[in-house]
Amino acid sequence: MAIGERVLMGPGPSNVYPEVTAALARPVLGHLDPEFLFLLEETCERLRAVFRTANRLTLPVSGTGSAGMEAALVNVVHAGDVVVVGVNGLFGERMAEVAARQGAEVVRVEAPWGEPLDPEALLRAHPSPAVIALVHAETSTGVRNDVAAVCLGKGEALVVADTVTSLGGVELEVDGWGVDIAYSGTQKCLGVPPGLAPLTMGERAWARRLERPASWYLDLGLVAGYVTGAGGRTYHHTAPVSMVFALHAGLGVLLQEGLEQSWHRHLGCGQMLQDGLQAMGLELLAPEGHRLPQLTTVRVPEDLPPHSGEAEVRRVLLERYGIEIGGGVGSLAGKVWRIGCMGHTARRANVTLLLAALAEVLGR
Amino acid sequence: MAIGERVLMGPGPSNVYPEVTAALARPVLGHLDPEFLFLLEETCERLRAVFRTANRLTLPVSGTGSAGMEAALVNVVHAGDVVVVGVNGLFGERMAEVAARQGAEVVRVEAPWGEPLDPEALLRAHPSPAVIALVHAETSTGVRNDVAAVCLGKGEALVVADTVTSLGGVELEVDGWGVDIAYSGTQKCLGVPPGLAPLTMGERAWARRLERPASWYLDLGLVAGYVTGAGGRTYHHTAPVSMVFALHAGLGVLLQEGLEQSWHRHLGCGQMLQDGLQAMGLELLAPEGHRLPQLTTVRVPEDLPPHSGEAEVRRVLLERYGIEIGGGVGSLAGKVWRIGCMGHTARRANVTLLLAALAEVLGR
Repeated sequence: MAIGERVLMGPGPSNVYPEVTAALARPVLGHLDPEFLFLLEETCERLRAVFRTANRLTLPVSGTGSAGMEAALVNVVHAGDVVVVGVNGLFGERMAEVAARQGAEVVRVEAPWGEPLDPEALLRAHPSPAVIALVHAETSTGVRNDVAAVCLGKGEALVVADTVTSLGGVELEVDGWGVDIAYSGTQKCLGVPPGLAPLTMGERAWARRLERPASWYLDLGLVAGYVTGAGGRTYHHTAPVSMVFALHAGLGVLLQEGLEQSWHRHLGCGQMLQDGLQAMGLELLAPEGHRLPQLTTVRVPEDLPPHSGEAEVRRVLLERYGIEIGGGVGSLAGKVWRIGCMGHTARRANVTLLLAALAEVLGR
Repeated sequence: MAIGERVLMGPGPSNVYPEVTAALARPVLGHLDPEFLFLLEETCERLRAVFRTANRLTLPVSGTGSAGMEAALVNVVHAGDVVVVGVNGLFGERMAEVAARQGAEVVRVEAPWGEPLDPEALLRAHPSPAVIALVHAETSTGVRNDVAAVCLGKGEALVVADTVTSLGGVELEVDGWGVDIAYSGTQKCLGVPPGLAPLTMGERAWARRLERPASWYLDLGLVAGYVTGAGGRTYHHTAPVSMVFALHAGLGVLLQEGLEQSWHRHLGCGQMLQDGLQAMGLELLAPEGHRLPQLTTVRVPEDLPPHSGEAEVRRVLLERYGIEIGGGVGSLAGKVWRIGCMGHTARRANVTLLLAALAEVLGR
């Protein structure tokens, strides 16, 4: 079978940097090889730079972004803890579910899909929650939630932020805002294939972690014994070395460009895309001021050509142009398209191509 | 920094097939792309061939081998269940720990590290266990445990087998023996980098699975909704596409060679290695008849040159020859070396090189 090549403009994965492809093809090293440990430590240091944190516990969890979510919650949510969860999309729903499986008393604070969460409502939801959890960039709706405002009023609570789609693409200041735990994925704005979950945890969260969480694989006390290696490294699990090479390379590209330059590039591409979609007469789901530049939700027009549902439009884009865009999920299934412009995909040429291709397919 | 290249003869990772390196560098596809889904389904079909099973639930778990262990246990161990665990090495210990974290009543059946488990002792340990769990190929000791014999007497219990180091390297018959759940890793005899955990689960285990396991990430009911896709695929998490490409390619190489030919190749290399070590006057840990060909534990000789501990021997092999071998773990730390000959590493040239290099370093 011929090897397909795509312009990945869905909700992730996005295209990867050429340096990342080269890194994936590096000869495999042992997980205790001095050369690998050097690269792993440098990867953690680079993650600190993109998370904007000095947290010692900053590392790639050996699973996808959802493993990062589970690692974040399973290590600090004790059975019976009150966990306030902001729910305005699929990934907020997921945080509530993962917290509930840890035995938390989950207090849901909702907003309609497509609208931002109200930070005050999250802070008022319970007088003394153990954790307040919310998604920074809701991949299901294209909405940005105000993590900084929640951190400002958190009091004794730990703030857990899902930054899967935000890290590297829009401003995120883990230490500056006071986020206690943030986790992400590699396949969005970092330009690396899916498979690792960058995670950072501050001292307040570390001090409250469970001695023996339900998950052994995601037990960050044990994982840190290998990755951070203070006082000698203790084997936990075999690190996914090729994916670590890839992440190391992707972060290198990003930091050579400059973190703020990367935010700026994502912003420019997103504005160009959103302007172009609106000029085509299409309507954006997320309200102005709360839109993510890197992930745009646009309503499926009601005047599609006959026999041509929204899935058919995506199919034609994929087959004719090799462009992938995403459909809606959950309550937005069939109602929106999700167009990502993240990582190596976030270039003007891709936006121009997508807009022209979509105009042709829609006959606009 | 120059890119290091190694002959990986530790307990894993092993060297990867050239076809795997090429597959890692393939352009990334979306996790719902028809081309990716075709490759994913073919990967599952190839896994059925190497596990020797018709189990519909056969897939790569999105984590390393230890995630496979956790997925196997977290989906079928209900709180309070009796789980009999065979413990004769580090990975048996780990199974006991993971089962305990699920709230199991763990019944340990031990054998000294370096000796095989007694299948009869496992079967007699409790009158009606829910699960009997054991490691097929103990990576910490080089010992093979008799999974087939345990399956023969399992009765109503489910047998969970850790086949991380055995899959593709020595005989394993999931359906033929009656193993209910087996999981593995990619970085041993499959010749693929670490990062995925092939897993297979039969109907008896599926019928007893928890509706809502503590782990959302490893909830095989949800994972299967995406991977096996009966009745439309439900998004669960973003598949680690590049690692799936790699596994697909590695399994392709293995099946083109032939599964039994691969067992034969691992056996031949292991015998050559073990004969050569003994001819050098070194002593093997595992008793004859229970030795794994693909993972050999050899006692560190007492007459090492002055100032040259066992770690120094490994360091010199790595620096002078680019050969990695492993040290001992747990109660065997400092007492044995672990020499793997798995996957693409399992070639006569590597055995010859290792034997000559070790003879030189040891002055034998």
